Amino acid sequence: MKKLYIIKIGGNIIDNPIALEKFLMDFSKMQGLKILVHGGGKVASEFAKKMGVSQAMVNGRRITDAETLKITTMVYAGLINKQIVALLQSQHMDAIGLCGADANIIKSSKREVADIDYGFVGDVLSSSINSNLLSVFLEMNLVPVFSAITHDGNGQLLNTNADSIASVLAVALSDKYNVQLNYCFEKNGVLENIEDENSVIKTITKTKYKQLLQTGIISKGMIPKLDSAFSAIQQGVCSVVIANADELINTTKNEHAGTTLIA
Amino acid sequence: MKKLYIIKIGGNIIDNPIALEKFLMDFSKMQGLKILVHGGGKVASEFAKKMGVSQAMVNGRRITDAETLKITTMVYAGLINKQIVALLQSQHMDAIGLCGADANIIKSSKREVADIDYGFVGDVLSSSINSNLLSVFLEMNLVPVFSAITHDGNGQLLNTNADSIASVLAVALSDKYNVQLNYCFEKNGVLENIEDENSVIKTITKTKYKQLLQTGIISKGMIPKLDSAFSAIQQGVCSVVIANADELINTTKNEHAGTTLIA
Repeated sequence: MKKLYIIKIGGNIIDNPIALEKFLMDFSKMQGLKILVHGGGKVASEFAKKMGVSQAMVNGRRITDAETLKITTMVYAGLINKQIVALLQSQHMDAIGLCGADANIIKSSKREVADIDYGFVGDVLSSSINSNLLSVFLEMNLVPVFSAITHDGNGQLLNTNADSIASVLAVALSDKYNVQLNYCFEKNGVLENIEDENSVIKTITKTKYKQLLQTGIISKGMIPKLDSAFSAIQQGVCSVVIANADELINTTKNEHAGTTLIA
Repeated sequence: MKKLYIIKIGGNIIDNPIALEKFLMDFSKMQGLKILVHGGGKVASEFAKKMGVSQAMVNGRRITDAETLKITTMVYAGLINKQIVALLQSQHMDAIGLCGADANIIKSSKREVADIDYGFVGDVLSSSINSNLLSVFLEMNLVPVFSAITHDGNGQLLNTNADSIASVLAVALSDKYNVQLNYCFEKNGVLENIEDENSVIKTITKTKYKQLLQTGIISKGMIPKLDSAFSAIQQGVCSVVIANADELINTTKNEHAGTTLIA
């Protein structure tokens, strides 16, 4: 099977134009098949503030009312997505910006209201990925760039966690490809001590993850990321790497960078 | 050659959710190959106002400074484009939302500064259309939905006139398809008397167009639309129809609706 890299970037890279440009230069140099998934960072919150739309977060997830959905769709699927695509195109990488509604590639379900009403938030399953079409695009040497907006198939757009999208894409495509899923962020990996960038935990097994959770070493923001990652591994993804965006090239060269998650 | 419909909608349809939904229902019922091109309407101006970004128009074209480019990219390529795609998908039409940067489909050049500096505005040529890729998408039964944002190939997004995009797409694809280009808007066609919806001019030849221009019967907003249309016909497009969005189905059934432009 061919190797496929699924690279997810979020928050701090997108919010920093210089870091984003450096990352995209590195990404454009990567050989082989690849997909980029991006979050939204603070830009959406800043626009919401300018427009007087108040924002609420619970467990690291945005509460998405109708106005917030408009803003996230504009910022994620519009501004950020197209800026990234234009930059990659300038580096002769044939990127195509997509949200989940496009070609019905990622369908999601509006999250049921339990204790918290997350609003227009979608949850995704790997079974809801149009992986046949995606692999046609990949074989055409197109590089899909996904924003974290999906749809329910009934005309409703839904705001979706970008880590989860990267994870379900990786699972859905692991039938056809040898998938390496990379979560790029601003830290050097999963840290033993959040204050110390040199305390990267090189390898985390599922058993070790449970211990780290119990001892409270893993911070709240990392939990959905690691849950998604282990779920992906359990469902056939070859490897998941969590590393600094600066180390992108190293993580694809079998040089040890960041934290590697294994079964 | 197969028939291909290129349908352009703008302003008043997009600004009216009920009209837009009705139009999209009709569009989703159209058989055969088709492409939708949409403008932005007042939504972008409203967001600009909310965000305190002042807007200037000259000859029906928006002056696009850096902040306005952000807003148009968000609103056209993000909000409106993805809402349209999600709605078409709910009607089982396999729409894919694109801007010109996506898969490098529409390249443009930043307009040279002459008397007026239009800012980040792109001009498009039919030679800058990636028509091979577009026809691959069409043969996959995908329905491309274009926002009027393009790129210069050097990383710069550019705001572009949606009528011009529809026109150059029609020209570029007329080698491969029998193209009918439809401009849908809120009036019944090109009107002899702008106050009278029953005064539709059924047919306009290039000669008649010159006369109408000289006598001032054609209003300012119509001039770029008709210029684009005649340019398209001269370059191989079979027919151009300007009609009320409500008449979409009739214009594709050889029933006479709106104004037909011929060489």
